[in-house]
Amino acid sequence: MSNRIIKLFDIKYPIIQGGMIWNASWKLASAVSNSGGLGLIGSGSMRPDNLKLQIQKCKEATAFPFGVNVPLLYPHTEENLKIIINEGVKVVFTSAGNPKSFTNKLKENGIVVVHVISSKKYAIKSQEAGVDAVVAEGFEAGGHNGREETTTMCLVPDVVRSVDLPVIAAGGIANGASMLAALTLGADGVQMGSRFVASEEGSGHPAFKDLVVEADESATKLALKKLVPVRLMKNQFFNKIEEAEAKGASEEELRNILGKGRAKKGMFEGNLEEGELEIGQVSSIIDGVKPVSEIIDNIVSEFNSLLDKMPANKL
Amino acid sequence: MSNRIIKLFDIKYPIIQGGMIWNASWKLASAVSNSGGLGLIGSGSMRPDNLKLQIQKCKEATAFPFGVNVPLLYPHTEENLKIIINEGVKVVFTSAGNPKSFTNKLKENGIVVVHVISSKKYAIKSQEAGVDAVVAEGFEAGGHNGREETTTMCLVPDVVRSVDLPVIAAGGIANGASMLAALTLGADGVQMGSRFVASEEGSGHPAFKDLVVEADESATKLALKKLVPVRLMKNQFFNKIEEAEAKGASEEELRNILGKGRAKKGMFEGNLEEGELEIGQVSSIIDGVKPVSEIIDNIVSEFNSLLDKMPANKL
Repeated sequence: MSNRIIKLFDIKYPIIQGGMIWNASWKLASAVSNSGGLGLIGSGSMRPDNLKLQIQKCKEATAFPFGVNVPLLYPHTEENLKIIINEGVKVVFTSAGNPKSFTNKLKENGIVVVHVISSKKYAIKSQEAGVDAVVAEGFEAGGHNGREETTTMCLVPDVVRSVDLPVIAAGGIANGASMLAALTLGADGVQMGSRFVASEEGSGHPAFKDLVVEADESATKLALKKLVPVRLMKNQFFNKIEEAEAKGASEEELRNILGKGRAKKGMFEGNLEEGELEIGQVSSIIDGVKPVSEIIDNIVSEFNSLLDKMPANKL
Repeated sequence: MSNRIIKLFDIKYPIIQGGMIWNASWKLASAVSNSGGLGLIGSGSMRPDNLKLQIQKCKEATAFPFGVNVPLLYPHTEENLKIIINEGVKVVFTSAGNPKSFTNKLKENGIVVVHVISSKKYAIKSQEAGVDAVVAEGFEAGGHNGREETTTMCLVPDVVRSVDLPVIAAGGIANGASMLAALTLGADGVQMGSRFVASEEGSGHPAFKDLVVEADESATKLALKKLVPVRLMKNQFFNKIEEAEAKGASEEELRNILGKGRAKKGMFEGNLEEGELEIGQVSSIIDGVKPVSEIIDNIVSEFNSLLDKMPANKL
C-alpha cells in the first residue's frame, strides 16, 4: 500500500499516534515511529524547557520521522513553536485553535503542518490556511471535542468530499478493523490516541492505563460543553461537573469546579477520582497495556487478514 | 456474498430500511423489499386499523419478505402486535423497550424477532430474551437514541464480540462506503433510516425530505436527554428545548414544551419550525430525493467498486 499520508510523512504504515497531553512523551513517540507509524510528542502539557528536552531525546531514540502536537490554546504555545522550529522538527499537528495563526510560519520553516478539525467547515478553513493534511476527529474521540458532535462515521466521508487534502481519521479507531473501516470511508490514514495511552511506553500513570483497559461502553461522556467540550472518563470529578451542568451551571461555576491542574492530577499522577481523565469511547475495546511494537503489529495483521477476506463480500 | 442476515431474512442484499415513524408506510417498505433489501413498516405512528391496512397493502405490493418495526412504548403496542400476528407478518423489529416483553410470544407465532439496542448490555439482554438478531444503533442515528451515546464505530465492534447473534449496524450509514465500513467492523448487515426518508416512496412530507437533503453536519443534535434522548433537526422547536435544557429545565417543563403530536406535525405535515424532525447526522451526505431502486442500486455499486479496489490497501 502507498497513499498520500504514507508519502507525506515518509512512513511505513498510515498510523499516527495522537499527541495527547500527559501521555505522549518522547518514549511513546519514538516507539511508534520505530514501529512504522508516526509518533507525536504531546506538547500541550509541556513547558518550553521540557519540550526541548523531549524533542532532543526523541531524535536520539529514532531515526524515523516524528512530530509534535501543539494545541493552540496555552499561554506557552508561541514559545513552544519557536523551540520546535529551532530543533528542526519536521512535522507539526496543530489543534484547538485557528489554523491561520501559525501555518505560514511553520511552512516557511519547512515543516509539514496538519490541523485537527471536527467539522467540514474547519476542514475547508484549514485547506485555505495552507495545511498539508487534516485530522478529522469524531465525537467518540477522547479529550477536546467539537461542538457539532459529528461522529467519525459521518465526519470522515463529509470531509473527504469537501477538501482535496489527505484526511486522517480519528475517534473510535483502535484496531485493524476500525482502521480498515476508516480507510473505507475515504481516509488516507488514522490517528489513534486511547490505544496508545494503554501502551507500556505511554507516560500516563499506570493506574490510568489500567482504568482504560477496564473501561466499558458507558465509561466516558462528553462534558463541559459550555466551556470547551471534552470527553472524560466518569469519576467523582466528572459527576460533580455533570450535576452542576444538569442544574444549568454558568461558565464561571464550571470553571471553579474545574480549577487548575486537573488533567495532570488524573492522567499523570493517577488520582482517578479527583483528576480529569481524558479518553475515547473506544477504550471499551482496548484489551491490555502492551508494548507499542505489539500494538502496531496486531493492528497491521488484523488489517491485512480482514483485507484478505473482503472479496467474499461481493454483492 | 452470503451471510447470517441474508439467510435469516432470505433477502438479496443485507440492507434493511429502518421502520421510522411517519416516514415508513407500505409504499416505502415494499419498494425496499422489491429492490433486494428488507423493508419495514414503521408501526409506531400507526393506530391498529391503519397498521392492518398497511400490512395488507404491503403484501399486495411485494412477494418478497418485509417486516414491521414496533416501538414498545405506545399505548396501542399490544393491539398492533396482535394484528401483526394475525396478518401473518414474518419479521418484527422491536425497539425502545424490554426485549423480554414480547419476544417469546412473537417467536411462538413463527416470527423472526430483531431488537434494536444502543449498548452492549442490552445486546446481551436481547440474546438472553431469545431474539434472532440485534440492530446496534449508534449515537449518530436519528430519532430515539441511547443514553450511553456510543457511536456506531465503537458500538458495533463491542456488540459483535459480546453476542453470538448476527448484528445489523445502524447510525451513520447511507451509502456503499459506510455500508462496507460497517461490515468491516463486524456487522452482518446495515439498517438505514435517513437515506430512505429522502426517497420518493417515503411517506414524510416533501418539505421535510428536501430539508434532509439540504442538511449539513451541524443540522442535527441529541435533545431531550432527561426524557428519552432523541436526535432532532435544529429548528424553532429544537431551540426552545435546548434553551430550556441549558437552564436546567425539569422533566415536566420539557414535557410541556414537547406537547402532543409534534412528530406528526413536523415530519408528516411539514411544519418545519414547530414540528419535531427526527433524522440522523448522516443526512449531511444525502444528496437527493431518489426512487428506492436507484438508492439501493447506487449503494450496491459503490460497495462493489470499493471492494474491487481494496487489495491495493495491503500493508
